[in-house]
Amino acid sequence: MEKRFEVKPTIYFIRGLNLNELVFVGLGLNDEEGITLKGLEETRTADTVFMETYTSLMPKFSLKRFETLCGKKIQVLIRQDLEEDSGKVILNAAKCGKAVFLVPGDPFIATTHLALRIDAEKQGIKTRIVHGISIISAIISLSGLHNYKFGKTVTIPFRENFSETPYMVIGQNRNLGLHTLCLLDLKASENQYLSIKQALQMLLEMEQKKQMKIISPETVAVGIARAGSDKPMLKADFIEGLMDFDFGEPPFSLIIPGDLHFMEVEALIALAGAPIDLRRLAK
Amino acid sequence: MEKRFEVKPTIYFIRGLNLNELVFVGLGLNDEEGITLKGLEETRTADTVFMETYTSLMPKFSLKRFETLCGKKIQVLIRQDLEEDSGKVILNAAKCGKAVFLVPGDPFIATTHLALRIDAEKQGIKTRIVHGISIISAIISLSGLHNYKFGKTVTIPFRENFSETPYMVIGQNRNLGLHTLCLLDLKASENQYLSIKQALQMLLEMEQKKQMKIISPETVAVGIARAGSDKPMLKADFIEGLMDFDFGEPPFSLIIPGDLHFMEVEALIALAGAPIDLRRLAK
Repeated sequence: MEKRFEVKPTIYFIRGLNLNELVFVGLGLNDEEGITLKGLEETRTADTVFMETYTSLMPKFSLKRFETLCGKKIQVLIRQDLEEDSGKVILNAAKCGKAVFLVPGDPFIATTHLALRIDAEKQGIKTRIVHGISIISAIISLSGLHNYKFGKTVTIPFRENFSETPYMVIGQNRNLGLHTLCLLDLKASENQYLSIKQALQMLLEMEQKKQMKIISPETVAVGIARAGSDKPMLKADFIEGLMDFDFGEPPFSLIIPGDLHFMEVEALIALAGAPIDLRRLAK
Repeated sequence: MEKRFEVKPTIYFIRGLNLNELVFVGLGLNDEEGITLKGLEETRTADTVFMETYTSLMPKFSLKRFETLCGKKIQVLIRQDLEEDSGKVILNAAKCGKAVFLVPGDPFIATTHLALRIDAEKQGIKTRIVHGISIISAIISLSGLHNYKFGKTVTIPFRENFSETPYMVIGQNRNLGLHTLCLLDLKASENQYLSIKQALQMLLEMEQKKQMKIISPETVAVGIARAGSDKPMLKADFIEGLMDFDFGEPPFSLIIPGDLHFMEVEALIALAGAPIDLRRLAK
């Protein structure tokens, strides 16, 4: 396969033409080609390039291929670099030229790096954002459900950190007829991913405990694997039907719908293999 | 300025190697460089390329520059083409090869084209999505407010279509401590954009009418102009302070925050020029 985004030396690479600034660039989802043309251009013209890959999983991302694409050596930061050092290494680089910080997804959909941006601005370093595709809009877009019918988003953590919060958020949204987007926790560096089955099991256990009639094996849910990749997998069914469904490789997410418009039901049947029995639930 | 995404003829352009399919590709925001590398690649290798630009505004998008970039002649569809014809022209093209349909933002964050995707699948045409940057995540990301604290999103229409809905949605979200993202209506083809001032005025008038104590001149709001562009403008202030603020060129959007975490307050002060007086509101 021929590469068509070759790097060519341009005047942008000459150090000194850049302002001192910190540009947060979203890598988007899945692989090197999830970045926008604008994001690649910003990276190519940076004096220093940093990246973190611990806030989200990019399953097919190759650092080597990306370095070839942008013609830059990239410094990969781990969580400790940013937490212990408060991003000092990035701020110092931004004081001597244009620093680009590559972040999976859209740079500030997770709040992880917000403190770094505020620190930079307080120190007089200009910051900019070049957006990337966010998992949030990708999942909503894939599902065929209506964006304006989603309520508050929630993360479902691993069992050791599980609390009543996700269950209560789903309940609050469902009482208003709204859908809940549930991000399932992951530890990318340890290759650990909460599965859709585990998430559903914990929610059903919380129902047993709380008895608030928020969720049951007969509730409809939509499981999503690999949103943003070439081969995403969607399956909508009653929860009991999803328990043994094989979603394949991570990452995973989950939607617990609220009231379903008939167009949404048709979308779930046509695009997510929902049983046609769902039609009786359309409002 | 040298162009670095040159088109080269490749084996992909040979008709017949493609499957029959319909690929929805997100153009992202603002201009030609808002598309991902993956999206450009899909466009370059299509047999037929369609585009619509009526569901959203891409202020700096040049069709000519984009056609050069992707090496394809693009058929621009207007609303009538899709509404009256049910997208027949696109479906027919997808029956004879790979058709790409370019849509601003992320293809299915607006529900406009969902029926087309469902029709295609029902007719046995394989569909795929190549995501683009959505205005939704761009605005949330820019604002520095926490994504998981946003409730239901709402669109504020022009005065002739204004109803109590936006006001009620803001109220429902604020009662739960949640932020409301308000998309402001636009008629891109007629160069008409609801301004932040007009939106706030209509909300305050609805408060006068309903008296539900949802919003007042002392409520905090965040106005955003040109999200996703090189020069976005953010301004957070009490509503009375925003009324005469000059946001410059469209498109516009608005956030009416719910409860503010102290980190969110610091973000609004550092990144959106909020008065430091906001600190007393932090929860």
